[in-house]
Amino acid sequence: MDARVTDLPEAWLRAQRDRLWAEYLDLVRIPSVSAKPDHAGDVRRAADWVARRCARAGLGNVRILAEGGHPSVYAEWLGAPDMPTILVYAHYDVQPPEPLELWTTPPFEPTLREGRLYARGASDDKATLFISLAAIEAWMATTGRLPCNIKVFYEGEEETGSPTLGAILDRHGALLKADLCLSADGGMMLPDRPDVSVGNRGICKLEFTLRTAAKDMHSGSYGGAILNPLVAIARVIASLHEEDGRVAVPGFYDGVRETTERDRAELAAVPFDEAAWLAGVGASKAWGERDRSVLEKLWLRPTLEINGMWGGYQGEGSKTVLPCEAHAKITCRLVSGQDPKRVQAAVAGHLRAVCPEGATIEIRLGGGGAAAYEIPPDHPALAAIERLLEDVYGKPCFRTRIGGTLPLCALFRDRLGLDTVPMSFSTADEDFHAPNEFFRAESFDRGLTAWVRVFEALASLPRRRA
Amino acid sequence: MDARVTDLPEAWLRAQRDRLWAEYLDLVRIPSVSAKPDHAGDVRRAADWVARRCARAGLGNVRILAEGGHPSVYAEWLGAPDMPTILVYAHYDVQPPEPLELWTTPPFEPTLREGRLYARGASDDKATLFISLAAIEAWMATTGRLPCNIKVFYEGEEETGSPTLGAILDRHGALLKADLCLSADGGMMLPDRPDVSVGNRGICKLEFTLRTAAKDMHSGSYGGAILNPLVAIARVIASLHEEDGRVAVPGFYDGVRETTERDRAELAAVPFDEAAWLAGVGASKAWGERDRSVLEKLWLRPTLEINGMWGGYQGEGSKTVLPCEAHAKITCRLVSGQDPKRVQAAVAGHLRAVCPEGATIEIRLGGGGAAAYEIPPDHPALAAIERLLEDVYGKPCFRTRIGGTLPLCALFRDRLGLDTVPMSFSTADEDFHAPNEFFRAESFDRGLTAWVRVFEALASLPRRRA
Repeated sequence: MDARVTDLPEAWLRAQRDRLWAEYLDLVRIPSVSAKPDHAGDVRRAADWVARRCARAGLGNVRILAEGGHPSVYAEWLGAPDMPTILVYAHYDVQPPEPLELWTTPPFEPTLREGRLYARGASDDKATLFISLAAIEAWMATTGRLPCNIKVFYEGEEETGSPTLGAILDRHGALLKADLCLSADGGMMLPDRPDVSVGNRGICKLEFTLRTAAKDMHSGSYGGAILNPLVAIARVIASLHEEDGRVAVPGFYDGVRETTERDRAELAAVPFDEAAWLAGVGASKAWGERDRSVLEKLWLRPTLEINGMWGGYQGEGSKTVLPCEAHAKITCRLVSGQDPKRVQAAVAGHLRAVCPEGATIEIRLGGGGAAAYEIPPDHPALAAIERLLEDVYGKPCFRTRIGGTLPLCALFRDRLGLDTVPMSFSTADEDFHAPNEFFRAESFDRGLTAWVRVFEALASLPRRRA
Repeated sequence: MDARVTDLPEAWLRAQRDRLWAEYLDLVRIPSVSAKPDHAGDVRRAADWVARRCARAGLGNVRILAEGGHPSVYAEWLGAPDMPTILVYAHYDVQPPEPLELWTTPPFEPTLREGRLYARGASDDKATLFISLAAIEAWMATTGRLPCNIKVFYEGEEETGSPTLGAILDRHGALLKADLCLSADGGMMLPDRPDVSVGNRGICKLEFTLRTAAKDMHSGSYGGAILNPLVAIARVIASLHEEDGRVAVPGFYDGVRETTERDRAELAAVPFDEAAWLAGVGASKAWGERDRSVLEKLWLRPTLEINGMWGGYQGEGSKTVLPCEAHAKITCRLVSGQDPKRVQAAVAGHLRAVCPEGATIEIRLGGGGAAAYEIPPDHPALAAIERLLEDVYGKPCFRTRIGGTLPLCALFRDRLGLDTVPMSFSTADEDFHAPNEFFRAESFDRGLTAWVRVFEALASLPRRRA
């Protein structure tokens, strides 16, 4: 059998495996909780750790990029002028570990039990961040070069919604120029079959208050002759969807990309067990637009969800109050073709139009909207990564999507013109944001193999015009 | 001009006025807050004060009646075997005074400012309670007797919903037997025109929870494919009323007494200023069943009010949660002909019938229901008291109703067979349950005159068959 290009770095990784695992644990021990101000020093310590590790892997031009928030770490190897440039993305910050009492072992004392490493950040996102660095080191240590140009960009505030990421991209757009973003964040759906996520839904937010009087009233003295704002808001909320769940807001579906035969074929290839999915949350049946599958509704259709609604008395027993106001919070998940601001405006317009006589409405438009993202289905990076993953897992790869929102993907597309393909070795069940987060040790090895091969696999990627 | 029967006691009242006012203030100084366990001693002290005052007024058989709650004070004068017996009702307990910081002067240091006595309980209900006792004393001190038999029943837990009143009535039904209940609780609508309240609405209560899953979900991972319980509850709540406010629950109006021409004439005689009423609560327009006036809707029509509704996230900002449950609390105000338990069952049945597929409903039926109460419009006590009040005020009397619920009236009717007529000299604007409760000093004098005359006016009342 012929020697493969990746034989040398792969052999190096096998030889260094225990040292690399120990280093990964060192990173996991740093409590880089970006949401908590008293951990700002730990976040900075993690950034420094990552920056040193970049240099040690053989990357140059190591920089700390910050625009008022937690810093991002940048580094590069640009020694192949004729080859494409891959921007590797990951984040080194982690979710808060609370509630602490639910952890079997302390969240920042990584502990291996039955092949799983338990710690906050063990899976999200320090495992694949470290894997990407180790794979770079494997190439540099064994061949003195990489199969393509590499820029790494490791963020420090992903878990707080990346508040300064846009500013960093604006400031350093030229530095971050590349042909593709390969994201070490995300995750596989199943532990034993590979998938590639080809898109995620966008989001827009708004909330509103209905008022029918200036103060709460006695239900005996006013009931029946003043509009109850809870009745008013129920009518307003009930007007937002058709009976079957289709959104009834005029203009909501304007521009929505319709599901194609190819989409349907991709959805059909997903090993999705609807009964298990329902049982997982204790729901008795699926809901929503008729003649569309659950996966289609979750991945390819926009939604309008009420995240909260409230008014009046909520305590024990009864209180004979006729309240004067009622509130609701709404988020919409968006798909390709929808603009967050236009959808927000359409929903606000509908709310104003259906606000009943006798009530006034105050609408607050939320910021932080994000467009949906899809990688073009024929993008050559997709095919290359799918082949690679099938080889590593020995099983066919399928395409998934994320029903939630990764603002990063739309940001990279809109600010840097970059498509993003995720290749994370976290698995969906690894309790990322919950107590007892864990990472499968076998995924560490699979990840190292895949990441050392991916640079070679992407070396033939067409280069974007400058 | 001929001497009137009441000349002697009225002259006595005028002579004793300052002493009586000082005694009324002594009663007001006792912080008999029935809702607060640490005031139990004060409530008992107030009961003892009232009991001693009954004896001093010339009443006999003074008793403390208690069935596990705060005691009621009973006393009687039954020296006119051929005359009717009047049961005088009042309550000596008061609402909590909080929030204390909003009081201009301390709540239990009665302070006279510009003709108004400020204190908790000054109006509700210690003023007319004391007036009733002073009027009895005036008769006994000047004539050694009363124009009719009198039983007084002064309750100590009205402000906590009279939890043991039913038990007291059950135990002491024979002792409390009478021909009419004259209530010193209630109030006039206006400070300068007399009215008599001829009824109040009943009440029934229930609350419910809708569930669509066993745990809260991520709106990106489940939104659009699992029924949102806030959408479900909005549809359920929206189904409870017709567009115009008429209750849409099948059977809700069964048995409801329809408004008569006489009712309409009584309503038309009420000096009700709808614009001022709306402005008082900052509402822009009246609501509810078409072709019915505000007063008709408040006094003669049943209602179904949502007192509270909630689910999901209510904090600052947004949370992309798809909640698993939603809640609502309902009370219905009832009119003559409606049974609280049957209405409760009708609403529960409707809720179950409209609960959407994909949701389960849990209904909790509230206790503490009460039927509506109306005194027959031709009851001779009404005419007697109306004449008396017109004489005292020098202005025509009108008939009012109470949109709220006085469980006492239905209880007295159902347990003791007694009709109840209120004759309180509190005025509706005297902030009974709010900071800076006050009582008009001029009402003290009007009240003494009216109460000394009412025993004479009711002496000709037909006696009930034993």
